[in-house]
Amino acid sequence: MFSPALEALVDALRCLPGVGPKSAQRMALHLLERDREGAQVLALALGEAAERVGRCQRCRNLTEAPVCAICEDPRREAAVLCVVETPADVLAIEQAGGYRGRYFVLMGHLSPIDGIGPEDIGLDRLQTLVQEQGVEEVILATNPTAEGEATAWYLTDLLAADGVRMSRIAHGVPLGGELEYVDGNTLMHAFSGRLPVSR
Amino acid sequence: MFSPALEALVDALRCLPGVGPKSAQRMALHLLERDREGAQVLALALGEAAERVGRCQRCRNLTEAPVCAICEDPRREAAVLCVVETPADVLAIEQAGGYRGRYFVLMGHLSPIDGIGPEDIGLDRLQTLVQEQGVEEVILATNPTAEGEATAWYLTDLLAADGVRMSRIAHGVPLGGELEYVDGNTLMHAFSGRLPVSR
Ligand SMILES: [Zn+2]
Ligand SMILES: [Zn+2]
Repeated sequence: MFSPALEALVDALRCLPGVGPKSAQRMALHLLERDREGAQVLALALGEAAERVGRCQRCRNLTEAPVCAICEDPRREAAVLCVVETPADVLAIEQAGGYRGRYFVLMGHLSPIDGIGPEDIGLDRLQTLVQEQGVEEVILATNPTAEGEATAWYLTDLLAADGVRMSRIAHGVPLGGELEYVDGNTLMHAFSGRLPVSR
Repeated sequence: MFSPALEALVDALRCLPGVGPKSAQRMALHLLERDREGAQVLALALGEAAERVGRCQRCRNLTEAPVCAICEDPRREAAVLCVVETPADVLAIEQAGGYRGRYFVLMGHLSPIDGIGPEDIGLDRLQTLVQEQGVEEVILATNPTAEGEATAWYLTDLLAADGVRMSRIAHGVPLGGELEYVDGNTLMHAFSGRLPVSR
């Protein structure tokens, strides 16, 4: 390539998920030909975020404050806690709207094969939080994968001892989804999770 | 969103071409959860490139030196000059391999509607370069669009006066491309540009 600085930029852009060599090149050229200001703004935002964003002391979500805005918000019900695997899950639920409780972010899931045990996903802190915050219901929203399910079961056992009401979010055919396009696992899950109807 | 620094990063990532709100969010979370070092490296590379990359005094390509590596390379034929619209075109030709001449990068094309005239795409400098560098052949590799074609015709008139051999790269059905998937314009171009064959 014709410039070491450009080459370094193309290489660095490849740390972004879903960005291959071709799109890294397209991004770098776009910024240098047409949006130098955008490049400077992005450089600053990256530096600031990488340096300042840490984890909430209470829920482990990403935040630059000691305690995140959701945990600090007095309008969010402290008695309901939703357990998710990642900050992206929190965003998805917040963007869907409607949920008024708080969160606990595992930042992963139990995975004995990878050596990830209960403390690595903050379960000691979760148990303390449930007790201190007076949590009455825990909604398990870990992913419907083998690891996510195993984590949900582990949590059920762990927190049942504290007399907390436990629930698992429903899994099945997405609303508006056509049956023929839903994958087989989801479909079988929807069948085994069928609910009685009456009129 | 739960953190102003994270929100600023998501916004800033949207200056990248092809990055919408969802993928900007995915990128930001990925960097903060799993690749802080990558974020710092990218911040640095962006700042450096935005500050240091300018244009080659000779060919107008992006470079951080006064004259770019291709123009400086004594093994590249100075007598052959390929005129392209953008640095991305240079990269595409270089990555295809085989071309051993030099380049001139217009950084655009003639567009009277947008007020882009000959001097805006450096044609005064191109004419000087052709004379000073002893260019014997100019290969016109502007895009096969209305503006690219008009620019190629303008250049043909401009440089013919200097006694330079002018050529236009071939356009037609891509090698390995199946006729049925080639767009109509390309196909018609391929027909009108047909060459006699004999055996
Ligand atoms: Zn929090
Ligand atoms: Zn040059």
